[in-house]
Amino acid sequence: MSHVRVHNFAISLDGYGSGEPQSREEPFGHAGERLHEWMFTTRFWNEMHDDPGGSEGADNALAIRHGQGIGAEIMGSNKFGPPGWQDDPDWKGWWGPNPPFHTPTFVLTHRPREPIEMEGGTTFHFLDASPAEAVEQAKAAAGDLDVRIGGGATVIRDAIAAGLVDHVHLVQVPIVLGRGSNVWEGLEALEDGYDIEATSTSSGVTHLTFTRRR
Amino acid sequence: MSHVRVHNFAISLDGYGSGEPQSREEPFGHAGERLHEWMFTTRFWNEMHDDPGGSEGADNALAIRHGQGIGAEIMGSNKFGPPGWQDDPDWKGWWGPNPPFHTPTFVLTHRPREPIEMEGGTTFHFLDASPAEAVEQAKAAAGDLDVRIGGGATVIRDAIAAGLVDHVHLVQVPIVLGRGSNVWEGLEALEDGYDIEATSTSSGVTHLTFTRRR
Ligand SMILES: NC(=O)c1ccc[n+]([C@@H]2O[C@H](COP(=O)([O-])OP(=O)(O)OC[C@H]3O[C@@H](n4cnc5c(N)ncnc54)[C@H](OP(=O)(O)O)[C@@H]3O)[C@@H](O)[C@H]2O)c1
Ligand SMILES: NC(=O)c1ccc[n+]([C@@H]2O[C@H](COP(=O)([O-])OP(=O)(O)OC[C@H]3O[C@@H](n4cnc5c(N)ncnc54)[C@H](OP(=O)(O)O)[C@@H]3O)[C@@H](O)[C@H]2O)c1
Repeated sequence: MSHVRVHNFAISLDGYGSGEPQSREEPFGHAGERLHEWMFTTRFWNEMHDDPGGSEGADNALAIRHGQGIGAEIMGSNKFGPPGWQDDPDWKGWWGPNPPFHTPTFVLTHRPREPIEMEGGTTFHFLDASPAEAVEQAKAAAGDLDVRIGGGATVIRDAIAAGLVDHVHLVQVPIVLGRGSNVWEGLEALEDGYDIEATSTSSGVTHLTFTRRR
Repeated sequence: MSHVRVHNFAISLDGYGSGEPQSREEPFGHAGERLHEWMFTTRFWNEMHDDPGGSEGADNALAIRHGQGIGAEIMGSNKFGPPGWQDDPDWKGWWGPNPPFHTPTFVLTHRPREPIEMEGGTTFHFLDASPAEAVEQAKAAAGDLDVRIGGGATVIRDAIAAGLVDHVHLVQVPIVLGRGSNVWEGLEALEDGYDIEATSTSSGVTHLTFTRRR
């Protein structure tokens, strides 16, 4: 059975996965890059950027789970582009010609367009569909492999609330953002459905992993 | 210089220090006792309840800081009693004749009454005052010792926002409460003023400690 997984989703102490306002210049709003600094020192990150070396401890081991066994991603419209990207027919995401997904990638949006085939195995498909329908299509595209829910917070919490997610990995970063898109909203009593582990590491973050109870 | 400290303040993953509604039967609302279970296995807790033994690891070491070197406590009206306690002239707090404070204890309330002297060194003083004025009075009462801000979340975040707090110890428990009194509200950019450490322990909680930068 293929699983639906969330990996490396970084949040502030108060649960925000991005700041505000989101823009082309500041994709994460006032959060800047602070939610992701823990990852920049890992071997996982460096290798993606053709830089050998980097830490190989728990941060890295959890980070590399991101790509392992994944056959498709689902992301939200606000992860794919800044406000208004739908009005730009040439917008192809933030990631250049060879995006780091390397699988079919489903973008949830109320203004879908034709698929875009990129280099390196990523094809963006645009879907106006419920989370359950999106997961069904992504599972079909992933074959035997798993589906990653790539974020942002809105799409992650919608998928969890709909009971679609088997595993969640959040990375809690020691900053208080105060505003933005919050991953906890509407998830009261999440602990009823998941075993939860907390692992703080020397980089200062705490990894929260949620594994669906069988 | 005497310090102002917060200890053992337990919050859910989404930052709530109590659930709702608060009542005489359910002081923590729908949170029940789940925010405090991590503490019930420590030697600190057991010794307060005349039960020898209990864990002596990091949970316990952080928990016993609660009383060490403390000469006064400040608490909020909603910690002192359930909604409406002000209408009950006999209400003396939740803790019986010998409350676990053993120092002057200042209760912030818009409906102050005469002080109440309890057994074991606790005297409740009722104050309608700003956080800064309350800290000033508590410091005077504490002499050379430190002042503890005992909660709830409202009083803690007001004191932090007013720049009055030197050290904060929060205990993040793996539950999502969804509603209640939230400790993070209004504390955007808290990291600018404090060094933050995260320590997860085998009991499943994560201790967050904030030490004011000098
Ligand atoms: N912290 C991290 O690790 C991390 C990871 C990834 C992304 N991010 C950041 O998170 C932010 C985005 O998060 P977000 O919560 O604002 O938004 P999001 O989850 O990326 O996207 C939400 C939007 O997607 C569309 N959408 C969602 N569900 C839909 C459905 N069922 N059908 C049709 N359309 C649907 C809607 O946009 P429309 O109505 O406009 O179509 C909705 O407003 C960005 O700043 C991104 O950079 C952070
Ligand atoms: N999680 C933990 O470890 C922990 C620890 C302690 C307590 N708690 C729980 O937290 C809950 C209470 O938290 P809370 O945030 O609801 O309330 P709280 O912080 O205990 O009390 C807030 C109330 O205190 C009064 N007050 C605050 N500042 C004041 C000021 N400057 N001047 C005059 N009055 C002032 C006001 O009440 P009035 O207007 O009514 O006077 C205000 O509504 C309770 O359920 C308690 O059991 C949890």
